[in-house]
Amino acid sequence: MKALVYHGPGQRTWQDVPDPVIEDPEDAIIRVDAVTICGTDLHILKGDVPTVQPGRILGHEAVGTVLDIGAGVRGLTPGDRVLVSCITSCGRCAYCREGHYGQCLGGGGWILGHLIDGTQAEQVRVPFADGSVHKLPDNVTDEAALLLADILPTSFEVGVLNGRVSPGDTVVIVGAGPIGLAAIATSKLFSPSRIIVVDLADARRKAALERGADLALSPDEDVVGAVRELTGGLGADVAIEAVGIPATFELCTQVVRPGGTVANIGVHGAPATLHLEDLWIKNVTITTGLVDTVTTPRLLAMLAAGRLPLPGLITHRFGLDEMQDAYDIFARAGETGALKVALFTMEGAEQDTR
Amino acid sequence: MKALVYHGPGQRTWQDVPDPVIEDPEDAIIRVDAVTICGTDLHILKGDVPTVQPGRILGHEAVGTVLDIGAGVRGLTPGDRVLVSCITSCGRCAYCREGHYGQCLGGGGWILGHLIDGTQAEQVRVPFADGSVHKLPDNVTDEAALLLADILPTSFEVGVLNGRVSPGDTVVIVGAGPIGLAAIATSKLFSPSRIIVVDLADARRKAALERGADLALSPDEDVVGAVRELTGGLGADVAIEAVGIPATFELCTQVVRPGGTVANIGVHGAPATLHLEDLWIKNVTITTGLVDTVTTPRLLAMLAAGRLPLPGLITHRFGLDEMQDAYDIFARAGETGALKVALFTMEGAEQDTR
Amino acid sequence: MKALVYHGPGQRTWQDVPDPVIEDPEDAIIRVDAVTICGTDLHILKGDVPTVQPGRILGHEAVGTVLDIGAGVRGLTPGDRVLVSCITSCGRCAYCREGHYGQCLGGGGWILGHLIDGTQAEQVRVPFADGSVHKLPDNVTDEAALLLADILPTSFEVGVLNGRVSPGDTVVIVGAGPIGLAAIATSKLFSPSRIIVVDLADARRKAALERGADLALSPDEDVVGAVRELTGGLGADVAIEAVGIPATFELCTQVVRPGGTVANIGVHGAPATLHLEDLWIKNVTITTGLVDTVTTPRLLAMLAAGRLPLPGLITHRFGLDEMQDAYDIFARAGETGALKVALFTMEGAEQDTR
Amino acid sequence: MKALVYHGPGQRTWQDVPDPVIEDPEDAIIRVDAVTICGTDLHILKGDVPTVQPGRILGHEAVGTVLDIGAGVRGLTPGDRVLVSCITSCGRCAYCREGHYGQCLGGGGWILGHLIDGTQAEQVRVPFADGSVHKLPDNVTDEAALLLADILPTSFEVGVLNGRVSPGDTVVIVGAGPIGLAAIATSKLFSPSRIIVVDLADARRKAALERGADLALSPDEDVVGAVRELTGGLGADVAIEAVGIPATFELCTQVVRPGGTVANIGVHGAPATLHLEDLWIKNVTITTGLVDTVTTPRLLAMLAAGRLPLPGLITHRFGLDEMQDAYDIFARAGETGALKVALFTMEGAEQDTR
Repeated sequence: MKALVYHGPGQRTWQDVPDPVIEDPEDAIIRVDAVTICGTDLHILKGDVPTVQPGRILGHEAVGTVLDIGAGVRGLTPGDRVLVSCITSCGRCAYCREGHYGQCLGGGGWILGHLIDGTQAEQVRVPFADGSVHKLPDNVTDEAALLLADILPTSFEVGVLNGRVSPGDTVVIVGAGPIGLAAIATSKLFSPSRIIVVDLADARRKAALERGADLALSPDEDVVGAVRELTGGLGADVAIEAVGIPATFELCTQVVRPGGTVANIGVHGAPATLHLEDLWIKNVTITTGLVDTVTTPRLLAMLAAGRLPLPGLITHRFGLDEMQDAYDIFARAGETGALKVALFTMEGAEQDTR
Repeated sequence: MKALVYHGPGQRTWQDVPDPVIEDPEDAIIRVDAVTICGTDLHILKGDVPTVQPGRILGHEAVGTVLDIGAGVRGLTPGDRVLVSCITSCGRCAYCREGHYGQCLGGGGWILGHLIDGTQAEQVRVPFADGSVHKLPDNVTDEAALLLADILPTSFEVGVLNGRVSPGDTVVIVGAGPIGLAAIATSKLFSPSRIIVVDLADARRKAALERGADLALSPDEDVVGAVRELTGGLGADVAIEAVGIPATFELCTQVVRPGGTVANIGVHGAPATLHLEDLWIKNVTITTGLVDTVTTPRLLAMLAAGRLPLPGLITHRFGLDEMQDAYDIFARAGETGALKVALFTMEGAEQDTR
Repeated sequence: MKALVYHGPGQRTWQDVPDPVIEDPEDAIIRVDAVTICGTDLHILKGDVPTVQPGRILGHEAVGTVLDIGAGVRGLTPGDRVLVSCITSCGRCAYCREGHYGQCLGGGGWILGHLIDGTQAEQVRVPFADGSVHKLPDNVTDEAALLLADILPTSFEVGVLNGRVSPGDTVVIVGAGPIGLAAIATSKLFSPSRIIVVDLADARRKAALERGADLALSPDEDVVGAVRELTGGLGADVAIEAVGIPATFELCTQVVRPGGTVANIGVHGAPATLHLEDLWIKNVTITTGLVDTVTTPRLLAMLAAGRLPLPGLITHRFGLDEMQDAYDIFARAGETGALKVALFTMEGAEQDTR
Repeated sequence: MKALVYHGPGQRTWQDVPDPVIEDPEDAIIRVDAVTICGTDLHILKGDVPTVQPGRILGHEAVGTVLDIGAGVRGLTPGDRVLVSCITSCGRCAYCREGHYGQCLGGGGWILGHLIDGTQAEQVRVPFADGSVHKLPDNVTDEAALLLADILPTSFEVGVLNGRVSPGDTVVIVGAGPIGLAAIATSKLFSPSRIIVVDLADARRKAALERGADLALSPDEDVVGAVRELTGGLGADVAIEAVGIPATFELCTQVVRPGGTVANIGVHGAPATLHLEDLWIKNVTITTGLVDTVTTPRLLAMLAAGRLPLPGLITHRFGLDEMQDAYDIFARAGETGALKVALFTMEGAEQDTR
């Protein structure tokens, strides 16, 4: 089959590789019908994630069709249309037993396209398949489901739930890339009164306003002053970090009110400064986290019921064999305006026209 | 009357000052029967808290007797024996209305010995008296009650409750000064399986072990390794910072397990480094905070019922007019072994011998 | 002044009474600009609430203007436009100190129109005024604010928050009177996937559907079967009781899924049967409660920000001196279709046309 | 092998039956080393649990040794010493995925000795073995571990955690049988100030006092009055029902304070009366539930660390082949004073003497 293989920093090729096979009774082999590229994949290509070895097939988000299952898989049948989640769950370890699959100690967690071969391929082997893929309702399209592989549960769990967004809140979201825009949509599930988005790029601020932000500011403006003015001098109830650099994290800690929460979603490569000399007295809660995807079944049911307003994130669509082009477009998002790119096989595309 | 007056960095005198008077209908004038000195008072004397102006009477912890009340005070009568809490609550602002008195917007919060004259005096004026002092049950001594003015509710609310200490937890407490030792006692209310204390000083590690810590380590040892070894490689469920310097905070973020909590109690004067490049993926919660004292009535009731094991923190006792000596002893804690010092008036002392 | 006085079961008159006066330094005298009648007032008139003595002025919901304040009132000035909340809070007792004003032990709680004279009058004395009335933003009309005196915070706190309504939930609301309809609106703040309303009356089921219910059933239908069919056999995540009779409460306990919550809002006059032989094994949570109104400031801010969609409950409007007619219309809701009736003074009405 | 077989109401025999065999790849066959009898087994024998069919081997609590495992079992090896939990968890259904194993929809939940053959036998087949048995640390004896099969996690999760027992609370436990006595021990993990136990039998009240209750009352006394007197007129923070009859449940709802919680543990065979005419206004929370055993790993770790004080419940010890005698003694608890009976095989007994 064909797959996107990482060959060390800066190097990737769409090339022939052996088809995956069942290695463990709980594995499933999934034909990839739709797949996307994550900002994390770009980090890997920069060499920022040294745990990814050369030779690895990248990708941790897909929609596909079950081709084969191991003898220990109970809930799937070949032919089932499924969502492949970015998180794999062994179902047995202490973390999985309490719903914290992202911290799986039993060989799961974030492994696809990281510690084992991933989804940017014609087929993918998914371990612990019963706990790691989700059957798709008929009325959910591949393209819609694709957003539930990572970005929507991540913004919801790590941003909105960790941040405890509540009705009437003022929420500041720093970063209007795909994850920040998804956080607008998932914050709105809790009816905040005001969502303020901060991003450097005009186009992304515009994108945020189009997706329901009430105000979009540049970090060059007096963000802290603006938030305080709108909140009677107090600051935001919740600040969601959706970039992953020290400056944006620190901005979050400046805009949050006493008693509020900073929820970090961003993938960071460097330490930030925590101004404890200001914060020690302010009753602030700061959370970090990898998504658990424990809410994925619920989000999927909401999507099927027409109750999950999708933020319209997929800007570019490709055939699966245009993987290299898709990476090029996605990597130059500043120029191309790409938010999420989606790649579809012929089969997946046909299915979606039903 | 006599009072301990701050005259700028490094300067304090026990001197004559005018008696306080009722300035507002909700004020009470309290005769101080017992008082203590807080580590924060030493910070003020170093000039670290610039909001304290020269001329200010210091002190925010006391036990005393009501001498006079304003017309708007409902729950107190002259002669009542009371605890003067470090936190004053207006009872009307948004924060007070939800139990977050430490963040009071109506003129309360931490004001005694900070923004208004404090308790290290023969008398003290307490604003919003109904919400800021607590009547003492007969069977609670002045000395025991004194620990409920600040240190016990602080360790309980900001350390233990924010940290969500739970039965069976491994708790690491960094710092075995008075507040760290109080955190041992209040953590035990939730039956953790293991309390590990970290402190540089031999004497303080010994004090921690005597008060129920299961293990006491020096920061010169491999604390992270030791905690991991004891916890199956995972780390502590809860890490409580009870010092207030960058290194101790950073140690807390290193010893905590994925999914655990770092609860900061320490008063910080400088920023810390937050290693988000490690933490972003670990589902860690970090909390900061000034005490609200919302649990003080409950802690007081537990004390009266004999159900709050006091950690034995008062090492030196003085007469109120020995204030200067008490400061000297307390400031040289390394040499003197002082944990908390308590000063008593003749009247208070007599009462306690009943 | 004129007021609606209860003279024992079945007897009420709109009659001359003495103007209220300041009796306590924390009192305020409020001129009533808009007032409504609660279902509870009808219960009182039936004699169901024996704690209401003959001679009592009824009413616990109003919008008005501050005429006079006692010396201990800090946050109000004559001329302020205010919401008079159904709950009075002393601000000092253990319950008030933790935000549970409905259980006030210090002379507050539900007292207006119950233990002291109420709001169905030209003026009303409100004790503990700082904690019991709320200043109104200019852009909130009297008519909109009136719904925040009782019905919206009650449906939100006692129904939606106690019921822990969450995104994607199936919520069953039994009873489509004013409180049930308000529960539709406030449930939607948490983005449930499906709201199913149950009511005997065609008109009320229609009203529910118009206000956003997804399905409206008669209790004569197989409600339990219908809910199970829609929820994969499990039942509702949350069942909200908004009637106050045994049958409707029992229906709630039948439709709730294992792990779900029954939130009782209804005012009950008789015991219900709790089928513990079915429920003991089902991990069900049942909550009851009087509103605390702790969310009123937030709801008011949401209303001012245009973020609280009002359910359109006021069906009939009267002048204040048409009180008797308003009672007649409201008492015959089955015939008249009345949901909430609102009465306005000339002054209030003028103000609203600004 | 030998097993205790239910032959319809009132009939049980210790008889020869075929050895269990692996039927599913996730099964394990466990040799029973120690086993106990639950009050629920007596209910079954009375015919109260019609889902138990004649021919069923009873018992849902055991300690044993793994004899054989299916191909899909990952975490166990023949020879492992394990706890067999009363709850079996498929690990895949919506409830299991969130830690609510008691409500398992995938073929687990309470099935042993109920829907499939149970533990009162020389061997038992346990489905979904990875999620349903727990490896035992060496320093935990069979007899101690036996209490973690059901009674300790049940009292902890369904009584103490559902009841939200907190430091300083007044807790009323109605019923001083094994589960009520276990609730004393597990309540103490949260340092309540006062535990009041109610039971008809003198011996059980004495047993409660010996195990740490502060007060033991007969239901013939004025329990409500006594609780109110001790709590300033308010009532208990938490009331735990540990009997399972209407009168004891109703007592719980009478002794609880406004804002408090009634946690039902009892297995009920008949409906209770819920006095909503009193409770609607009191902000009471009532919970029911089957244990999930999600805390069992933590309780086991606490036991191994010497941090779980066991309440001393096993009053009678037997050989496994004395099963009929053990039932006789346990069924006549009023006469025999039996709390829990434990039966050991020779092998188990030997192991315990190590």
